[in-house]
Amino acid sequence: MPIIDFRVRPPAGGYLSMLLYSDGARRDRLTRQHGFEPAPSAIEKSMPLLLAEMDRAGVTSGVVIGRNSGPLGSITNEAVMEIVRAHPGRFVGVASIDPSNRTAACTEISRAVTAGMRAVNIEPGSYPQPLMVDDRRLYPIYAHLEDRNVPVVIMAGGSAGPNLGYTAPENLDRVAADFPALKIVVSHGGWPWVHQMLHIAYRRENVFLSPDQYLAGLPGHDDYVNAANGFLSDRFIYASSYPFLPVDAYAAWFKRLPIKPEAMEKILWRNAARLLGIEQQP
Amino acid sequence: MPIIDFRVRPPAGGYLSMLLYSDGARRDRLTRQHGFEPAPSAIEKSMPLLLAEMDRAGVTSGVVIGRNSGPLGSITNEAVMEIVRAHPGRFVGVASIDPSNRTAACTEISRAVTAGMRAVNIEPGSYPQPLMVDDRRLYPIYAHLEDRNVPVVIMAGGSAGPNLGYTAPENLDRVAADFPALKIVVSHGGWPWVHQMLHIAYRRENVFLSPDQYLAGLPGHDDYVNAANGFLSDRFIYASSYPFLPVDAYAAWFKRLPIKPEAMEKILWRNAARLLGIEQQP
Amino acid sequence: MPIIDFRVRPPAGGYLSMLLYSDGARRDRLTRQHGFEPAPSAIEKSMPLLLAEMDRAGVTSGVVIGRNSGPLGSITNEAVMEIVRAHPGRFVGVASIDPSNRTAACTEISRAVTAGMRAVNIEPGSYPQPLMVDDRRLYPIYAHLEDRNVPVVIMAGGSAGPNLGYTAPENLDRVAADFPALKIVVSHGGWPWVHQMLHIAYRRENVFLSPDQYLAGLPGHDDYVNAANGFLSDRFIYASSYPFLPVDAYAAWFKRLPIKPEAMEKILWRNAARLLGIEQQP
Repeated sequence: MPIIDFRVRPPAGGYLSMLLYSDGARRDRLTRQHGFEPAPSAIEKSMPLLLAEMDRAGVTSGVVIGRNSGPLGSITNEAVMEIVRAHPGRFVGVASIDPSNRTAACTEISRAVTAGMRAVNIEPGSYPQPLMVDDRRLYPIYAHLEDRNVPVVIMAGGSAGPNLGYTAPENLDRVAADFPALKIVVSHGGWPWVHQMLHIAYRRENVFLSPDQYLAGLPGHDDYVNAANGFLSDRFIYASSYPFLPVDAYAAWFKRLPIKPEAMEKILWRNAARLLGIEQQP
Repeated sequence: MPIIDFRVRPPAGGYLSMLLYSDGARRDRLTRQHGFEPAPSAIEKSMPLLLAEMDRAGVTSGVVIGRNSGPLGSITNEAVMEIVRAHPGRFVGVASIDPSNRTAACTEISRAVTAGMRAVNIEPGSYPQPLMVDDRRLYPIYAHLEDRNVPVVIMAGGSAGPNLGYTAPENLDRVAADFPALKIVVSHGGWPWVHQMLHIAYRRENVFLSPDQYLAGLPGHDDYVNAANGFLSDRFIYASSYPFLPVDAYAAWFKRLPIKPEAMEKILWRNAARLLGIEQQP
Repeated sequence: MPIIDFRVRPPAGGYLSMLLYSDGARRDRLTRQHGFEPAPSAIEKSMPLLLAEMDRAGVTSGVVIGRNSGPLGSITNEAVMEIVRAHPGRFVGVASIDPSNRTAACTEISRAVTAGMRAVNIEPGSYPQPLMVDDRRLYPIYAHLEDRNVPVVIMAGGSAGPNLGYTAPENLDRVAADFPALKIVVSHGGWPWVHQMLHIAYRRENVFLSPDQYLAGLPGHDDYVNAANGFLSDRFIYASSYPFLPVDAYAAWFKRLPIKPEAMEKILWRNAARLLGIEQQP
């Protein structure tokens, strides 16, 4: 069974200057809080090690998530695509945008899609000027994406902004309701708003949840897993959030969760493949 | 043991033109998301089938909940009472109101109570102009009900409004605090705000929770069940939310929950009977 | 193993006129909702009985939490210290303040610390004029405490204010973010915002959780216990919230929770000892 890991930030290009790699102690502390040991590839900032870890995990495709953030660091879309092109067939690129200029953001989205990127990542609370998920300045961009059938990845969980107010679930629900044809992947699964996010996914068929690292060792674990076996089986997206969690040990841990085989296959591959338009198996 | 099913919308009168019956595909999809098969009576829109299903379930009384909604459809109180009168001893009527005119609403409540209706249903987020649960325009109506000792059923959970903001639990808590003698049945149990609603019920002795269909197969299930065995045993109200769930299969499922026999009897009958003033067993 | 019970209001001094003791029926009802029988010392308002119950429980130190509240009653810091001094080595005092005058509050904090009090208790929603946890009027006081390295105990859970809005977790998160060197003990563990408070404690290393009575028999129990075994082991604070729960029966119940021995020792003693600066074992 092939596996798509939907949130990977490889040790290459602009990622190396992000907090993910520049503050290894913070990252490793978080990794251990989830019950995992840091990946050798993360510590050594080694692409060959990461590729070997992906092989060992059976991860056929890593989704390289772009980022344009003040506090967390940034990488250009061109630099993301350089990583993708340097390792044919191993990675899929997701673009980031600068929300402060909607016209430039929409132009950049067109350019990124033309270059082969499959979705756009929006991290509202982590922009230099933090935004709420339903900030009006994002609405023209959401509309642009909906009109062009480009999925959006929204970081609306975890430590996604200056404080917990930035992950308020009603904001995400408003966006999902106002753009019913926009496919939304909620990275970090909207944690800690577990019950509320599961309600949103229950109600809105355009919402996909990807709890990634927040599934491991945190409250809500059983609720996400039960939903994966039930109404969410077609919209649960597997991701490690590497380098926060190791690609291989996390995949091994995930495969042992009490998820039915037919749901597991959708979660590890089919749901993301359909979303990204990479239906054919490798 | 007799059973009161506190939320039933029979296939008759104005209910037939509501979304509940007009969009059978949507309803059946939701039914299956909860792990049940649609009721034959719902599919065939058949009162005789529903009565047979109630008999099979041991449901002695169905509480017919009125509705006055833009998006979800409406039924007059008179039409609800026609259903009640057509099947003596099988149904209890709960009135709906139009909140846009408080004087007319209060007059209608008096008329409905005189006609034998036992409570009033308010669905704030589903009115043609959606309201928050603690909207000031509802306060004269809540006061009218409290003064006359008429219980209120409030839909403050599930997909109760345009978005998740309409079920914000602090709004319900304010109403419960401001009208301490008003008996409030929270339909849908306030889901997905499970922990918050259980706090409210723990604190406010005038709040009754009825998780109905949202108990089945969703996060929070164990929390509701534990509360049913503990501090909530006198204020947990059984309901199927028919036609979303089948009256008979849901009752069979509910009776197998790990709820202590003495609590089960209160939940299936005694709590609702006390609330509705139908103390004598059939 | 010594035990610090971090929230004790003994039957002495100003506590006797608080709702805790003046409305015994309310208190005992809550005690039983958590599955415990009222303490004889609470019913008889007897210090000798409380000391005997502490001995039986192995509670070496009780943290006497001051209170300055309209609805709940008040006790002066001097009166708290009289209780502490009357029973050498058995109690540690925590001061309260009047937030309506920031200058007087800061002066009082200095006086209390000089008198031997180890922290300051702030109950924002229970002041005569209820405040939100992040009310600007509290910010100079939080700054004063942070600058002097005095821990703060904040009641930001349970029935901490007129309604659920007063425990909104984003307010606490803002305070924790704005005063990163201020050690914050969240009494009542921020219940019912279980997932959200665990997120805050996961993110903010200056936040300590003390679920106290709200751990017993309520939703979230397993989540708190799992966190106690994981990332929260260094910042979980044991407390009975006496007289709501009996000091001895609660300690016996708590020791049987599935918490690893090394975490249990931290929770019952070491975390609070470090925080209060009473490192040496008795």
